[in-house]
Amino acid sequence: MQIYSSAFWGVKLIILNRLTLLLFSMHLLEKLEQVKLLVFDLDGVMTNGKILVMPNGEWIREMDIKDGYALQHAVKSGLKVAVITGSSSTPVKERLSKLGIELFFENTPQKSLVINELLNEMKIDKSSALFMGDDLPDLDAFQAVGIKSCPSDAAPELLQHADYISPKSGGNGCVRDIIEKVLRTQGLWSAPTNIQSI
Amino acid sequence: MQIYSSAFWGVKLIILNRLTLLLFSMHLLEKLEQVKLLVFDLDGVMTNGKILVMPNGEWIREMDIKDGYALQHAVKSGLKVAVITGSSSTPVKERLSKLGIELFFENTPQKSLVINELLNEMKIDKSSALFMGDDLPDLDAFQAVGIKSCPSDAAPELLQHADYISPKSGGNGCVRDIIEKVLRTQGLWSAPTNIQSI
Amino acid sequence: MQIYSSAFWGVKLIILNRLTLLLFSMHLLEKLEQVKLLVFDLDGVMTNGKILVMPNGEWIREMDIKDGYALQHAVKSGLKVAVITGSSSTPVKERLSKLGIELFFENTPQKSLVINELLNEMKIDKSSALFMGDDLPDLDAFQAVGIKSCPSDAAPELLQHADYISPKSGGNGCVRDIIEKVLRTQGLWSAPTNIQSI
Amino acid sequence: MQIYSSAFWGVKLIILNRLTLLLFSMHLLEKLEQVKLLVFDLDGVMTNGKILVMPNGEWIREMDIKDGYALQHAVKSGLKVAVITGSSSTPVKERLSKLGIELFFENTPQKSLVINELLNEMKIDKSSALFMGDDLPDLDAFQAVGIKSCPSDAAPELLQHADYISPKSGGNGCVRDIIEKVLRTQGLWSAPTNIQSI
Repeated sequence: MQIYSSAFWGVKLIILNRLTLLLFSMHLLEKLEQVKLLVFDLDGVMTNGKILVMPNGEWIREMDIKDGYALQHAVKSGLKVAVITGSSSTPVKERLSKLGIELFFENTPQKSLVINELLNEMKIDKSSALFMGDDLPDLDAFQAVGIKSCPSDAAPELLQHADYISPKSGGNGCVRDIIEKVLRTQGLWSAPTNIQSI
Repeated sequence: MQIYSSAFWGVKLIILNRLTLLLFSMHLLEKLEQVKLLVFDLDGVMTNGKILVMPNGEWIREMDIKDGYALQHAVKSGLKVAVITGSSSTPVKERLSKLGIELFFENTPQKSLVINELLNEMKIDKSSALFMGDDLPDLDAFQAVGIKSCPSDAAPELLQHADYISPKSGGNGCVRDIIEKVLRTQGLWSAPTNIQSI
Repeated sequence: MQIYSSAFWGVKLIILNRLTLLLFSMHLLEKLEQVKLLVFDLDGVMTNGKILVMPNGEWIREMDIKDGYALQHAVKSGLKVAVITGSSSTPVKERLSKLGIELFFENTPQKSLVINELLNEMKIDKSSALFMGDDLPDLDAFQAVGIKSCPSDAAPELLQHADYISPKSGGNGCVRDIIEKVLRTQGLWSAPTNIQSI
Repeated sequence: MQIYSSAFWGVKLIILNRLTLLLFSMHLLEKLEQVKLLVFDLDGVMTNGKILVMPNGEWIREMDIKDGYALQHAVKSGLKVAVITGSSSTPVKERLSKLGIELFFENTPQKSLVINELLNEMKIDKSSALFMGDDLPDLDAFQAVGIKSCPSDAAPELLQHADYISPKSGGNGCVRDIIEKVLRTQGLWSAPTNIQSI
């Protein structure tokens, strides 16, 4: 039975945020402050890495509403957001589009190529690009960005190379977590009135 | 292997309930006794905050049967129950209707406005209204009610401002928990014969 | 990284089984030996108590394959098995029928009435009937049987009155657990060649 | 808040891998080096053992994308991979086919017969065949292979007889785990460029 007063949580929140800042190396903090482009893998990052195989062979994926809020927040705050997947999914594409994300790349074997093109087009430096992935094909994308991140349940090779490992697992808050950290570092995280939980 | 006698559980239940009452500040206890209107957010409160994205773009949400029992109990006990969401869902509306809840407000960017209207129409004081929400857009609704609550896995800003944090997470018993607490405080919780698990 | 030899598990299994027998009161052991009729609630016992609300308003429930194996085993071992629910579901009825269970009662507000009828028809004594349920409407059914059981995540009132609380939760092995215990006590649990995982 | 440097994870990974090798008996290590045929049960191994019962009676199963990566890796590394189930599923068959697995045997009451035939056709010795199963009907298949394995949540009888118990549960990485161990032992695990997460 957890019943705490507002004061308790207020203090706990402040302490936690300060500790978080201390735990980050200053180097990583500076990196997050510079982020202009956020790139995400689909399965295992935006989802829990599971697919529900329907009788007709089509797939159902599970997505997170709180992740969706953060994605909208990032876009409305002026950050560029892209999703790149080796798989494909029209309904996910439409879902992302409603959240304001038009940069959805499907059937992409080599994610680094797409990221390089995006950086060129947007004239964004590699050091301002962050990628979050969870499995071996994402190691290629790690080479194309300045900040490498992964969910807590990523493959060991990803955990080994990541600059930031989210305490949250794929489809269960890792996207929200990294976006919130980037926006907080840039002083942009708040409760805007123009974003709904959709 | 947990095997306990009835007596063990009987005692444990009585102690737990007494402890719960002690842990609640008397102020909160008095507040729960006065509750006449219960307002819930949909995603992350009535559900686990996940959506299953079907191939045709439609969504499937997961709801809890034990929550449903408590919602029926609340309505049949004379409490007013409303659900307000920034999203929309016809099947959820129908499910709630079967449970006796006709107050379902969809596509609502500012929940406080709806709550204020409900309080006016029903001539219920703000202090008798309870709201449970889980993410930043729900902070607005917090301002319109006397008792603010949230599930255990709500965003930190909600945990910070809540009068009551349920030990249960969204879609996994937080609705049942708060309704049971309100009805127990008002001496109305029992096993009525006119409520089924549907 | 859990790597154990067969011998380790063999010993562990024997010790666990003996401990289980010791932990059971001899009274309960004798009761399980006499069981001829097993009655289960649907939601929260055969399922995890969640429903997936589809766009057209229909529901999807989650069932467990290992539970299904045990249900077939019980039927083929000569036990009577029935499922009684306040809700209704044609696909669940069909699933149960494939497992050999034809006694499926839907839309049943008072489960005790159905159980009493079954006991009369089958000429089985109340003391040889076991019921497993998880929520307040199941307290009524508890009165009609000699052995009351519930999953680990049942409502507190059920935990309080149960003769046996399964260490497994609803939809996650509680059905398998109680059937396995009954059949082991009766010397009937084995790996029969005429049962498949379906 | 888990934030570790790459160096930390690098060292941790190396230590973990070495410890794993030490924990394995040399006997089992030699066995894994010889594996040429991997045979998997479907429900409870490739899935979490749950089925979603749709309104029309059809089933939805949940599969894992990281398992899918490993299955492709095994096939492209020259290993033979087969799936045998007492149940049946056309969409699972199609999913496996896309991953490169054509050996899918449905409605199979006695899995050992199929395994024996496969070993004969492929001229592979029993000692080079590995089977992973989770419930009593799989004990029969255990007799046909040299290396018996199961997920962490298998039935106790399977845990008792297994040469290797995966630390991962069914549908949650046990397939990935055993394939990764076999390929690492054979020096074949890497991040190939011709495998995508699909």
